Amino acid sequence: MPKLWQKSNTETETSTSKKAEAFTVGNDYILDQELVPYDIQGSTAHAKALNKIGILTDKELEKLTSALHEILEDWKNNEFEIRIEDEDMHTAIELSLVKKLGDLGKKIHTARSRNDQVLTAVRLYEKKQLKEIKSLTRKVAGSILDFAEAHQGIPMPGFTHTRKAMLSSVGLWAGAFAEILILQAESSGGIEALVDKSPLGSAAGFGTSFDIDREQEAEDLGFSEPLICSTTAQLSRGWTELQFVQYLSGVTSVLNRFASDVIQFSSSAYPYFDLDTSVCTGSSIMPQKKNPDVAELLRGGHSELVGFASSLQILTTNLGSGYHRDLQLSKEPVLKAVNKTKQLLEAAGLLITNMEPIKENLAEACSSEIFAAEAAYDLVKEKGMTFREAYRHIGDHPEEVENISAEEILKKYTHLGSPGNAGLEKLRERLERL
Amino acid sequence: MPKLWQKSNTETETSTSKKAEAFTVGNDYILDQELVPYDIQGSTAHAKALNKIGILTDKELEKLTSALHEILEDWKNNEFEIRIEDEDMHTAIELSLVKKLGDLGKKIHTARSRNDQVLTAVRLYEKKQLKEIKSLTRKVAGSILDFAEAHQGIPMPGFTHTRKAMLSSVGLWAGAFAEILILQAESSGGIEALVDKSPLGSAAGFGTSFDIDREQEAEDLGFSEPLICSTTAQLSRGWTELQFVQYLSGVTSVLNRFASDVIQFSSSAYPYFDLDTSVCTGSSIMPQKKNPDVAELLRGGHSELVGFASSLQILTTNLGSGYHRDLQLSKEPVLKAVNKTKQLLEAAGLLITNMEPIKENLAEACSSEIFAAEAAYDLVKEKGMTFREAYRHIGDHPEEVENISAEEILKKYTHLGSPGNAGLEKLRERLERL
Amino acid sequence: MPKLWQKSNTETETSTSKKAEAFTVGNDYILDQELVPYDIQGSTAHAKALNKIGILTDKELEKLTSALHEILEDWKNNEFEIRIEDEDMHTAIELSLVKKLGDLGKKIHTARSRNDQVLTAVRLYEKKQLKEIKSLTRKVAGSILDFAEAHQGIPMPGFTHTRKAMLSSVGLWAGAFAEILILQAESSGGIEALVDKSPLGSAAGFGTSFDIDREQEAEDLGFSEPLICSTTAQLSRGWTELQFVQYLSGVTSVLNRFASDVIQFSSSAYPYFDLDTSVCTGSSIMPQKKNPDVAELLRGGHSELVGFASSLQILTTNLGSGYHRDLQLSKEPVLKAVNKTKQLLEAAGLLITNMEPIKENLAEACSSEIFAAEAAYDLVKEKGMTFREAYRHIGDHPEEVENISAEEILKKYTHLGSPGNAGLEKLRERLERL
Amino acid sequence: MPKLWQKSNTETETSTSKKAEAFTVGNDYILDQELVPYDIQGSTAHAKALNKIGILTDKELEKLTSALHEILEDWKNNEFEIRIEDEDMHTAIELSLVKKLGDLGKKIHTARSRNDQVLTAVRLYEKKQLKEIKSLTRKVAGSILDFAEAHQGIPMPGFTHTRKAMLSSVGLWAGAFAEILILQAESSGGIEALVDKSPLGSAAGFGTSFDIDREQEAEDLGFSEPLICSTTAQLSRGWTELQFVQYLSGVTSVLNRFASDVIQFSSSAYPYFDLDTSVCTGSSIMPQKKNPDVAELLRGGHSELVGFASSLQILTTNLGSGYHRDLQLSKEPVLKAVNKTKQLLEAAGLLITNMEPIKENLAEACSSEIFAAEAAYDLVKEKGMTFREAYRHIGDHPEEVENISAEEILKKYTHLGSPGNAGLEKLRERLERL
Repeated sequence: MPKLWQKSNTETETSTSKKAEAFTVGNDYILDQELVPYDIQGSTAHAKALNKIGILTDKELEKLTSALHEILEDWKNNEFEIRIEDEDMHTAIELSLVKKLGDLGKKIHTARSRNDQVLTAVRLYEKKQLKEIKSLTRKVAGSILDFAEAHQGIPMPGFTHTRKAMLSSVGLWAGAFAEILILQAESSGGIEALVDKSPLGSAAGFGTSFDIDREQEAEDLGFSEPLICSTTAQLSRGWTELQFVQYLSGVTSVLNRFASDVIQFSSSAYPYFDLDTSVCTGSSIMPQKKNPDVAELLRGGHSELVGFASSLQILTTNLGSGYHRDLQLSKEPVLKAVNKTKQLLEAAGLLITNMEPIKENLAEACSSEIFAAEAAYDLVKEKGMTFREAYRHIGDHPEEVENISAEEILKKYTHLGSPGNAGLEKLRERLERL
Repeated sequence: MPKLWQKSNTETETSTSKKAEAFTVGNDYILDQELVPYDIQGSTAHAKALNKIGILTDKELEKLTSALHEILEDWKNNEFEIRIEDEDMHTAIELSLVKKLGDLGKKIHTARSRNDQVLTAVRLYEKKQLKEIKSLTRKVAGSILDFAEAHQGIPMPGFTHTRKAMLSSVGLWAGAFAEILILQAESSGGIEALVDKSPLGSAAGFGTSFDIDREQEAEDLGFSEPLICSTTAQLSRGWTELQFVQYLSGVTSVLNRFASDVIQFSSSAYPYFDLDTSVCTGSSIMPQKKNPDVAELLRGGHSELVGFASSLQILTTNLGSGYHRDLQLSKEPVLKAVNKTKQLLEAAGLLITNMEPIKENLAEACSSEIFAAEAAYDLVKEKGMTFREAYRHIGDHPEEVENISAEEILKKYTHLGSPGNAGLEKLRERLERL
Repeated sequence: MPKLWQKSNTETETSTSKKAEAFTVGNDYILDQELVPYDIQGSTAHAKALNKIGILTDKELEKLTSALHEILEDWKNNEFEIRIEDEDMHTAIELSLVKKLGDLGKKIHTARSRNDQVLTAVRLYEKKQLKEIKSLTRKVAGSILDFAEAHQGIPMPGFTHTRKAMLSSVGLWAGAFAEILILQAESSGGIEALVDKSPLGSAAGFGTSFDIDREQEAEDLGFSEPLICSTTAQLSRGWTELQFVQYLSGVTSVLNRFASDVIQFSSSAYPYFDLDTSVCTGSSIMPQKKNPDVAELLRGGHSELVGFASSLQILTTNLGSGYHRDLQLSKEPVLKAVNKTKQLLEAAGLLITNMEPIKENLAEACSSEIFAAEAAYDLVKEKGMTFREAYRHIGDHPEEVENISAEEILKKYTHLGSPGNAGLEKLRERLERL
Repeated sequence: MPKLWQKSNTETETSTSKKAEAFTVGNDYILDQELVPYDIQGSTAHAKALNKIGILTDKELEKLTSALHEILEDWKNNEFEIRIEDEDMHTAIELSLVKKLGDLGKKIHTARSRNDQVLTAVRLYEKKQLKEIKSLTRKVAGSILDFAEAHQGIPMPGFTHTRKAMLSSVGLWAGAFAEILILQAESSGGIEALVDKSPLGSAAGFGTSFDIDREQEAEDLGFSEPLICSTTAQLSRGWTELQFVQYLSGVTSVLNRFASDVIQFSSSAYPYFDLDTSVCTGSSIMPQKKNPDVAELLRGGHSELVGFASSLQILTTNLGSGYHRDLQLSKEPVLKAVNKTKQLLEAAGLLITNMEPIKENLAEACSSEIFAAEAAYDLVKEKGMTFREAYRHIGDHPEEVENISAEEILKKYTHLGSPGNAGLEKLRERLERL
């Protein structure tokens, strides 16, 4: 059996090259479509820096800037194409510049490398996406908080060990999901700091002998400052991307838990929430079923984020510093992770705005068994027992916890974060401050 | 700020449904293109089983079989389309059957569910792909073994702790990679057993009241037997897929290590192998550089496999048995893992058939320092020292290991698997038996 | 602030060495306790091989073998200690030999390295543990099958999308878990093949110039054959261990799913199974609660296996061939994974033998809604509707599915793997053949 | 063969309970040793809160506080033992209180659960450890920066694709590792925010009816504020721990890359740095070898962090909100990750303070090939060629790049972050600000 890659007599070296090329190009030419505006932004700043050190005249700078702007307009109109033979956006843009400006188009590639170029585009992209994802997170948290506020006084069983355990409330249940999303958004400063550094001017990781003003470039691009050592740029590639995706997966893991609860608490065993049919589907084999597919795919979607993070983790571990072609592979998980996270956040928003608590079921669910702890506390307060004694007493006299009203008890829960005082106004304040 | 998913006054419920639908469909309609022939195979076997229990007449069976065959032909000619509104191949195929056969087309969906249908298609696909990947693995192992045999007598330093340590040979170095690929292929029985069970007839996981002959179906599809309990089908979904992808990542992790060595041993620091320019690329900023991009992307590509496996691991952990819509997400990592593994195997084949040892460099690299252990062994043999004593003696008298010829020493290494007797003929036999 | 590792004036180099030593020793001296018998087994075979090539006289061989046996006896009596200053078992055993035999004790270390020595011990250990884990898996599968058989005729709802969907049975539910454990055990051939190769004689990865009979050594140790190329031994280190742990995690992931179901189906929402109080715990704050802690820790324990596998995956990726000290770190996850897997299997056994179905609850749970599909099928069979038409009809006439008896319907499910015919006898046969 | 868990005739239920107990206790009683002071801190704050609402009199508060302080002193003197029958520190401490104070000792457990108790201890621990790890990170970054500053003018080759590519410098190489550690430390705000919330008073996740002042408790414990919703406490368990460990693995992944470089650049192929023998080891089979074991175990140690994170990721995915016993398993990976990270940071410190650049080797390594890009740039500047033209010209005339002095060229690299101006003073400033 002839091997696919063996040179046959008629096969020329060119064909090996072509296979190698097809392999190395990968799908950059597709992925890069999303990054074009960021690469143009980087090139525009770079042209300005080249002008500052005399590589480009003012006139040349103007022409280049204007041509880059035209390309951006084409891109916005879906008229900028990256062909497979271009390999990536960098080449496609440069070819376009040359077509527009002749030799001047080539001068833009002075004092830089595709290594710092792509990294600059990616970090600009990440910075922008963090903002958008934070905004979406805030919206979803806001919708959950709306839900919590609207239904905060409704009693609901609280579960431990997947068993009804104590009295909770719809406000407390939903509030917790709002809070944890707020916490995640509040903690975004860490990853924001990491992506907010300009790699531009680091070239292939060792700078150039052109006296480029990297701090000015950073400022022009809206970064807080440059990555200081040029070598850090490549060393941070993959490492930063991993932490970026881990942050996103922090968001989606909350959605995963939220979806898990929604699936459970809209089932006939726990019929606490009614999902609008618009977010459910039927079954091909089981008439009458209303399946929570949106919630299930929200839950399952988190797995993709974990996969992207694992992939990035593996990519750079045990590698020496300096650029490796492997790093090209860090682009795809970042782009896909961003798109998936946004999609999941939107699905979570769809879900929460299309569900309603079913009051009568929730009331019925708050059966006497969940008041055992409460009753024990009463014994502590009223009879001065220790909790452990009271606990034993209730275990021996279950009849004492019957006929207790959930609404009455809810009123007794007054401390911050208890079922009767979920602290939603504090969360609302925190949300507004985000 | 209006929420994307909030129902505005003008927004009808339909639009929520549409968003939900877009979210739940995902990209099944794209992914399924690759699975069409397997789904047709499953439907053909199912039609036969329906005929056997009298749901389909002989005539109807013939018509359905023939129509399914036509669809397969269309698919082969790239003329079978799954539109986004079809959601998936199952609907697209059924619609096509109805278009061809009217109501008869609908009868095929008796006594089955999309759940067993998709699982059957996926397992048939996995079974086929395991064969192809095993065949490709064998080819790559064969090419590496060709390389080992062609250059087996060439001395080469052996490294420990990333340091030259002892004498090795090109045959031993390459032989090890051939062997480990052979080992992986030899161990494929485990995963082959897992995918070789028919899910057909399990319906949504609880069978049907039609007395379908599931064993006959399994036989018709070439499976060794059915998954016995219908519930096992859904319980094994994701679980089997994870082990399938882990197997593939066992292959790609060998390629990762192989590529790591090739990158290292074709560098100027260890100029042992010459990579053909057809598998290298130049640098935009560094003229004259010959970069091992194919090898680097081969090394890096493994990370994607690990990501797919992580994703599958997360997907089903902590879930109860029974179908969950999340399981739909197990399809994409499987398909992508297969395609990536094949691509990496082909790249590995390209690499090994486009590299040559550089004899003079290898000879020079076999410097006297690596004969220290050898010299110590001589003292053991000739002077009766213990190895630890001999070891200390050589440490004190480095001059004794100068002027030793690598070729001479290679002859002394006679045991199986030593640099002078790498055991390649045994590997060849094992390869042939695969 | 003085740095911990900075040499102060009074600090001698020795103290740096000591810190370095403490770091490099790690906890090998603890972990190795478990591996002592395997290392002795390896040394015994090695002594025999040294005798065969004249390094050891028959008398010396006898003495060494006998001394090794004594050490083994000490170990069995908990009287063999590996002190931290020994670093590992290899040194501890050699020192013990020297103490017993003087210089002869040192001769055992001829023609080998600690690299092949530890690998031989680990592979012997893995081989043995695979057997034990397979045996335990069989036992657990057997206990689950006992349960399935004992209660096979009891109707139970089958769930899809975490919703009651169709009729199932206790036999089918439990049978699925037995089957998937059997499948996992049946697929052990893959990993068994990988660990069943002898690394002995590969020394540091490049063999030695002693004409050791590696095939004889392999045979003496009960391996199917040696790893052919010496270099493969180190190349397979970590790679084999990863696949070994992945296999174990295949087992524990089944236990994870089983535990998930048990937790759910022993809750008040799905009160299908009664857990004996011996496998439950109470709550310090909630009197009367019976919590399924054993099941929860069984479910959660799987996470450790995944962690060990991830760790092993990271350890060797992107590394060149040849021994690296990093590989020492592959030992701990293997040992811990084995112990955790056994512990989880035993917990699963405890669980299944301490639970009972609650018939009346299961009967009540089989409410009419789950017969919708069945009713649709009847219309297909009796009125010749297509399933899709029947499905729509039932959706419009829910009253038609009331008053259906689960027991009656169960009888209609006759195909292999359906609720009425779970195929348990076939599973029993497969179990017996394991 | 009798099953381990099968009740034999002589086996009483107790023995099943004992096995279950042994399984559920796990190694908490060992792990908790490290957490005792944090649990005491939590209990002390809780006692104060109980006093505020009248559950404890002032006198009782004083007694309890004093007794807790005594226990802490015992712990400091290694005299506080948690026995396996205590299960965990909470019970051990409470028993000790009862022993000291009689019934009063039991009153401390009013209005709390072990769930909020352990979470409070863990978060206090995490908060403290983040500080210590940040401090250690700063020290290691400082030592690397010392190294960079001391040797900043020494030319060194810069690598891309594992090939010598361009001129770099020791200052730039080391500076990059210092910078990326500084970046990691600067980004700690995200995780610090997550752990800086008090879970105390959330009880089992639904609060209590005692009007505990949770904000005061938070303040007393030094937390910025309480987790608002009680339910958030359990929902954040595992989720926060994962992000905590991911942060630590961000640190250790830098050490992994650093170690990779050190291993490479202290080898005979790249003899740029001399490692002190105190951080190296010899080889049992290869006299004269100086192996970088500390660096290798530093590199490999990162794998453990990844494993802990994977484990935590798996633990909570797909689970509903509310306490699950599985969460107990989140403790071990956190404690181990902390200890491993500290150990690795100390090893990194040992390494950097025990290595020196080898000037003559570095000079020799800066061979003419790496000046190709530089020469191309000169043509751009002097002859007005575009870089791409210059690049081609140099490719055709390699002789033009011979006899170039590295020191001379270094002077031409003036922009921030270039080999001649690594920007170390800026890094020093950032380090001081940490």
